[in-house]
Amino acid sequence: MSSVNAAIEYAKQHYDSSLNELKEVLAIPSISTLPAHKPDMLRAADWLARQLANLGFNNIAIMPTAGHPVVYGELFTAPGKPTVLIYGHYDVQPVDPLNEWITPPFDPTVRGDNLYARGASDMKGQIHGCLKAIEALIHNGGVPVNLKVMVEGEEELGSPHLSAFIDQQRDLLKCDYVLNTDAGILRPDLPSLVYGLRGLAYFEIWVHGPKQDLHSGVFGGSVHNPAQALCELIAGMHDAHGRVTLPGFYDKVRVLTDDERAELARLPESDDDWLTMTGVPQLHGEHGFTRLERVGARPTLEVNGISSGFTSEGVKTVLPAKAMAKISMRLVPNQDPVDIEHQLKEYLHHHAPPTIRWQVKAMSTAKPVLVERDSKGMRAAVSALQTTFGVPPVFKLEGGSVPVVAMVKTMLGVDAIQMGFGLPDDNFHGPNEKLHLPNYRRGMEAYIRFFDLIAQ
Amino acid sequence: MSSVNAAIEYAKQHYDSSLNELKEVLAIPSISTLPAHKPDMLRAADWLARQLANLGFNNIAIMPTAGHPVVYGELFTAPGKPTVLIYGHYDVQPVDPLNEWITPPFDPTVRGDNLYARGASDMKGQIHGCLKAIEALIHNGGVPVNLKVMVEGEEELGSPHLSAFIDQQRDLLKCDYVLNTDAGILRPDLPSLVYGLRGLAYFEIWVHGPKQDLHSGVFGGSVHNPAQALCELIAGMHDAHGRVTLPGFYDKVRVLTDDERAELARLPESDDDWLTMTGVPQLHGEHGFTRLERVGARPTLEVNGISSGFTSEGVKTVLPAKAMAKISMRLVPNQDPVDIEHQLKEYLHHHAPPTIRWQVKAMSTAKPVLVERDSKGMRAAVSALQTTFGVPPVFKLEGGSVPVVAMVKTMLGVDAIQMGFGLPDDNFHGPNEKLHLPNYRRGMEAYIRFFDLIAQ
Repeated sequence: MSSVNAAIEYAKQHYDSSLNELKEVLAIPSISTLPAHKPDMLRAADWLARQLANLGFNNIAIMPTAGHPVVYGELFTAPGKPTVLIYGHYDVQPVDPLNEWITPPFDPTVRGDNLYARGASDMKGQIHGCLKAIEALIHNGGVPVNLKVMVEGEEELGSPHLSAFIDQQRDLLKCDYVLNTDAGILRPDLPSLVYGLRGLAYFEIWVHGPKQDLHSGVFGGSVHNPAQALCELIAGMHDAHGRVTLPGFYDKVRVLTDDERAELARLPESDDDWLTMTGVPQLHGEHGFTRLERVGARPTLEVNGISSGFTSEGVKTVLPAKAMAKISMRLVPNQDPVDIEHQLKEYLHHHAPPTIRWQVKAMSTAKPVLVERDSKGMRAAVSALQTTFGVPPVFKLEGGSVPVVAMVKTMLGVDAIQMGFGLPDDNFHGPNEKLHLPNYRRGMEAYIRFFDLIAQ
Repeated sequence: MSSVNAAIEYAKQHYDSSLNELKEVLAIPSISTLPAHKPDMLRAADWLARQLANLGFNNIAIMPTAGHPVVYGELFTAPGKPTVLIYGHYDVQPVDPLNEWITPPFDPTVRGDNLYARGASDMKGQIHGCLKAIEALIHNGGVPVNLKVMVEGEEELGSPHLSAFIDQQRDLLKCDYVLNTDAGILRPDLPSLVYGLRGLAYFEIWVHGPKQDLHSGVFGGSVHNPAQALCELIAGMHDAHGRVTLPGFYDKVRVLTDDERAELARLPESDDDWLTMTGVPQLHGEHGFTRLERVGARPTLEVNGISSGFTSEGVKTVLPAKAMAKISMRLVPNQDPVDIEHQLKEYLHHHAPPTIRWQVKAMSTAKPVLVERDSKGMRAAVSALQTTFGVPPVFKLEGGSVPVVAMVKTMLGVDAIQMGFGLPDDNFHGPNEKLHLPNYRRGMEAYIRFFDLIAQ
């Protein structure tokens, strides 16, 4: 039996204990955006550092940033072989609406083929599967490449301090390949490789009207309701064709090649599947593009949250003093988040009425990125996935944003390979997030094969 | 000294103890819309019933309704004289945003000429001042009219069960005059009498999109964001001239007479005062009408609250499953809340896109009402106010809604006289609600004079 097959066999035999170990870290509510969870962030980082120590990693450190720390470690057991920098994150999204979870988000629970917990798919399950693949190789002839592991705690915030960290640690992080395990595939029976990721520009917009909440009867008809004004501003951000109206928004958008459009059209996801998965009565988006183009290759603008006035049970006849919306744009090459902030402010300058005051607070950014599809790393990933799943992976443009991908391209000069095993219906960021356990198992196999192939 | 003057003197001498007594009931957080405050509602009702008992009222009862109870009592000490039904309410609005209160809402605090507390102006201070006027008359020759007192606990909910109560108790409530103490005047030096009140139709609109919150990157561009869809629907509810676009909304609106417009134009409230009071950068409303016309004589549509998605501190890249807005219309004669519900639903049928689902929940209604300006009761009120304030009151159309006014007109056949002493800047329904104490004192005087005049 080859060492690869031995390692795969080892991973299978240790699957139950791996799953129990994964549940340990899933029980830690490492919600990076909520200050109350700071101690949990440190617990999650410590848990990971101990995992690396158990695997025999060296130079392990919980390295401070201006925000949550980065867990780092090295395993150099393959002199002369390439070095792979593995990326992941140990932070998770908030859990609200909590009452929609069938089992508590930090009480990991197996139902059928799935493990339910916040962070199961995004992405503690992915990074843990990768570490278990490394363990399997260690016990079966050793890891055939040199490894660096960098697991951050702020991906769900848009990685606000990772760029400074990578910039300061260029030497430490030097590598031949970056393996980004914060990724997914299309279906359990269909692997895919993402070669482009959307960027992000996230804002809060505040509209201020009266100096305090007013009686809607006594004052209604005399002042502009801030919630109404904010709705009017938001409504104006899309035209009748579903296009974003911020001035210059599409100026730098890279046009898809005919080849790319043809390839996206071959992806075996149907709109009907999407309707079933989301439960919406009808799909929606920018006219003139397919759903996969709209999600992967076209920029969008979403309301992530809106709040104003009285929203508890019952009746309060208030004319609110202020209204707030969280708005974010997903960006595609070659849009720049800095331009987007200017465009948003210009839109508001032109369209906000003189009856209210407004302000914009920039919250988070990530640049969009495209990576080379025909590289040694990508070919190794294609082969590892094909052998594991029995079918070749399809290439895909991803709608989400993983800020590290643009950072390592810019600062380390390395294209990241997106290899993870989340599924589109894993409910990451929503209630009842799950990890499809067959993917967790196949993920370990694929990582073992990938490390073997990249060493050759 | 006449008994009127003696009663006024008595009220002055007992002012300090009256104020302390008022603070007792203001300390009870009788928020009718919040189920957790149900025990406080009963405490407030009991407090009032004991006040009536102390004054020697008969037939006192805390009378059940399908919601919060009505406090009732009678004082028949003037055989052959008219009977006045006094109306008030013991419930108050919620207190959020709590952090904007300078002193806690249920810790009544005097600062300068004002008493700060939730319910001080709306309207425990008003009903209490009226009871103190009755006490002063009792101790100085007796009350010259017969009294019935009806204080409800659901005015801030739109009096959802008062109509059924009045209907069932038509005999008990039979009277010659209704004195509605839930009212206000224009300025401390300028009394006013309201002869029209706007009605209300209050709704929740729910927009449902995906079956649960989605990742805004993975799904953004493929489904209609429910928060965006709701904003689009709300934005469309007004046209560029500030007019409400619901089909047929203005069809039944009573047109102001030239006389009324001229009289409203003479009211000494300037737009500049209004700007200062509200703090808005510029006034707003339906084109073609003055501010006082817009607030008093024209219907409006306000967003009382809106909520969707992630609204806590920080960043969550969620595409929300649903969005909710509380929307209410202030109605003027001869609009009917039932028509308005149909119009709202018709608007949504026409304008809601097929990409979302919507529902409307009717929450509360009140009919608009006009009362006769030249009646014996109104003349007594005019005279009482003129003597107390030294200037004659101006007639005014009120933007707010007091559902009882339409109910007593319809069911008891009696026009209510709106005589209370709240001020436009009393912040009722907002933080730092206050009662202007000189008005509390003058209110007692005016009530004493009113009861005397109506008996003649």
